Amino acid sequence: MPDVAVPPSADEQRLYDRVAGHVARLIEQGTLRPGDRIPSVRRMRGQMSVSLSTVTHAYRLLESRGLIEARPKSGYFVRDAAIRVPLPPKASRSNIRPLRVNVARLSRRLQDVLASPEVVKLGAAVPDIELFPTQRLNRLFSQMLRRFPDLGHRYDVPLGYPPLRKEIARRMIDAGAEVAPADIVTTSGASEAVYLALHAALQPGDTVAVESPTYFGILDKLETLGLKAIEVASDPQTGVDVDAIERLAEEKRIQAAVIIANFNNPLGCRMPDAAKRRLVEIMSQHQLPLIEDDIFGELHFDSGVRPNALKAFDRDGIVLYCCSFSKTISPGMRVGWCAPGIYLESFLQAKIALNPAVSIAMQSAVAKYLEIGGFDLHLRRLRRTLQDRARQMAYSVHQHFPEETRATAPQGGQVLWLELPRGFDSVQLFEEAAERNISVAPGVLFSPGDRFRNFVRLNCAIQASDRVEQAIIELGRLAKRQLAT
Amino acid sequence: MPDVAVPPSADEQRLYDRVAGHVARLIEQGTLRPGDRIPSVRRMRGQMSVSLSTVTHAYRLLESRGLIEARPKSGYFVRDAAIRVPLPPKASRSNIRPLRVNVARLSRRLQDVLASPEVVKLGAAVPDIELFPTQRLNRLFSQMLRRFPDLGHRYDVPLGYPPLRKEIARRMIDAGAEVAPADIVTTSGASEAVYLALHAALQPGDTVAVESPTYFGILDKLETLGLKAIEVASDPQTGVDVDAIERLAEEKRIQAAVIIANFNNPLGCRMPDAAKRRLVEIMSQHQLPLIEDDIFGELHFDSGVRPNALKAFDRDGIVLYCCSFSKTISPGMRVGWCAPGIYLESFLQAKIALNPAVSIAMQSAVAKYLEIGGFDLHLRRLRRTLQDRARQMAYSVHQHFPEETRATAPQGGQVLWLELPRGFDSVQLFEEAAERNISVAPGVLFSPGDRFRNFVRLNCAIQASDRVEQAIIELGRLAKRQLAT
Repeated sequence: MPDVAVPPSADEQRLYDRVAGHVARLIEQGTLRPGDRIPSVRRMRGQMSVSLSTVTHAYRLLESRGLIEARPKSGYFVRDAAIRVPLPPKASRSNIRPLRVNVARLSRRLQDVLASPEVVKLGAAVPDIELFPTQRLNRLFSQMLRRFPDLGHRYDVPLGYPPLRKEIARRMIDAGAEVAPADIVTTSGASEAVYLALHAALQPGDTVAVESPTYFGILDKLETLGLKAIEVASDPQTGVDVDAIERLAEEKRIQAAVIIANFNNPLGCRMPDAAKRRLVEIMSQHQLPLIEDDIFGELHFDSGVRPNALKAFDRDGIVLYCCSFSKTISPGMRVGWCAPGIYLESFLQAKIALNPAVSIAMQSAVAKYLEIGGFDLHLRRLRRTLQDRARQMAYSVHQHFPEETRATAPQGGQVLWLELPRGFDSVQLFEEAAERNISVAPGVLFSPGDRFRNFVRLNCAIQASDRVEQAIIELGRLAKRQLAT
Repeated sequence: MPDVAVPPSADEQRLYDRVAGHVARLIEQGTLRPGDRIPSVRRMRGQMSVSLSTVTHAYRLLESRGLIEARPKSGYFVRDAAIRVPLPPKASRSNIRPLRVNVARLSRRLQDVLASPEVVKLGAAVPDIELFPTQRLNRLFSQMLRRFPDLGHRYDVPLGYPPLRKEIARRMIDAGAEVAPADIVTTSGASEAVYLALHAALQPGDTVAVESPTYFGILDKLETLGLKAIEVASDPQTGVDVDAIERLAEEKRIQAAVIIANFNNPLGCRMPDAAKRRLVEIMSQHQLPLIEDDIFGELHFDSGVRPNALKAFDRDGIVLYCCSFSKTISPGMRVGWCAPGIYLESFLQAKIALNPAVSIAMQSAVAKYLEIGGFDLHLRRLRRTLQDRARQMAYSVHQHFPEETRATAPQGGQVLWLELPRGFDSVQLFEEAAERNISVAPGVLFSPGDRFRNFVRLNCAIQASDRVEQAIIELGRLAKRQLAT
């Protein structure tokens, strides 16, 4: 594939995505089978109402990912290997030993690598900035500055900016949760929300059940708060093993659980509603706090409705629901929230001690954006794009990584979770890749017990540009080399 | 004094302040003595280049504060009582018993009262919004949105926005501290900076030396982090007793100290340079971290240069210097920082765990404001205004509070600290005042050991409007009534 001197614009990239995604779906659904001729460039131009060069570029992308192949004078054909989707990783097992967490150093090292502007950000979990409604937000922001010039310069009240809390309460209905604005506390991102939730509901030395694997940002917080973790078996399709949590609760081995029920990071799976309901009932019955991180809840791939939150099943107020707009509206605006249920008072006390005020300017711009609409339309486009990108990256991994590599088929969210053969060291891959300006998140980050050393998490929310494709090829090469030695 | 139907504008209020402050200074310096006739309204109009009505209004303010009195047909005269400045409170004593802190509940109650838009905010430590350069900041903000539309929507790097760290490093030279941009970490306000500094340098159960009294925002953090506090004797003129800290360090009773060397909140005093130097040397010698809160450092009242920070004397990197722009540029923008010295690495790890990113939009607007100048001019005006307001509020307290009331003569900052007779209960005053939509900060908030129950902190950075004057009169009445029963 020739180097493109001028990188394509965000709009162009979106068009490539659309065409390539369309063809990939046709192949995945079996409409196009190995050996089938795919529609000609001209025909596809008409079908998709795009330019010839867009189709040509999209087909080249599919070709470089090993999905299709060009045959001289005949056109493009589906490759034999195309439908061999990677197998999913195996389910993990529980380990009832409480563990001290020790991921902060490696987590900091990852942040360091990600801080370089040159690095390919496969180690993050964030889409290209072009996917966010930045122009619209900036317009709303400028309007706010003109109409209420003082507003953004005042100290906020501890609960947070009231109009935003109202909009959040309205959105939470879609997640099945009825929460009043007075039961919502805004925070500086979901990270602060989860930290304060853990702080509000637990004492140092307490033990918390976590999914295995779980997001290292959660483990980081357990470590810094002096909490211990118990890893609970999790399935890449259905999430955490509720029976295992029930046993831990009955045996009084845990004082809380932290769960990403919608699109676990890194597994990308969604817990079924029945499992969600049972989990909440178990925690409720044992009067244990359940901290929910629902940051990817709006980013479901199937065409259906937004999945229920655990909070939807919370009759007794034991769920501390944490979320933010960092994955849907803007990572940089730092607007998150918590609905801490019966822990509201201690949550507020912790917030006042730590950082009593969130920027009103940011909160008011987000509130206005939610209020005047456009969010749902934006979400529909975003979900489709993320789904296409996840699928394309899975293909790309399948093409370039060692043959034995397994990969999740995420049901939502922004990451792909790869399992390499036993003995593979993803920390070594991480360091070798960093030298080549490529970031990945090594698997050990997702476990307090040094599990998942042969796993890697990839950000599949970034545009599959030539640069990203080259990075995947390079990662595959490094992985193969390591396995060969 | 007649009710004014239309409240004066911010510019008008500033003019009243200027004229009233000028006359108050003449009285305080002894240029005008009790019984002296003060310049006529017409003459003052010429001297100050203001309107007749401005002078009239300013003279009425001075009259209502008991500084001057009108004599029919003769003009205004300095009252006999005018120069009886309240005596300062007595110095506190040390208590070497480590105490668990328990102020969060009352601190939350104060935040609750302050959250009401109707309340007179004498319980806060923040000036009227009119004193901040909001228009200029908003212009810079809008420019930034136009020129770099994506910038504010990206995740920040852990250290913080580089151009801002460069500007901060430049400003810290004025505080005598040479710190490289790479040794500065930006935070969401000074509150987060102090929290992370304590977290980075200490373990739960450790004991920290604090000034007696000290800011409840610090005590709140000790409480939430499971740290104990030892109260160290402090003098309302010279600050903390360094000998006492030396003994505590020698006897290994403390693992750190948190000090507000420049304009202790609530005392308003500044530690002499010699004491600052010795304190840093002592802590350094015992290899103990010294957390400095310098949020009021730029707000010195005397005309001289900005006072040195403790950080200026820090040869070994043991000072974790915390500051923000919330008291000088904008409370709502939530931009603070820490220069954590040798604790940089653990500070960063804690920041990444808690809230890895600060809003780049806010940081870039502040950086631009610092870069293109105007900050120093703004600071000169702000200091003068704050000094005038502090003096006026002291007069007002002297006029309306029980005769035995003592008050600090702050050397900088934004608060006044009042001592009422023994047995007086400021928590009762707090609750009675709250019912009347007036907030004050009760003295017990400033001690882990239930000290200062007969003390009250007042925000002296707000405009001495009729409403504020009425609030002081009401507080004085409530205090007298309580003492009479």
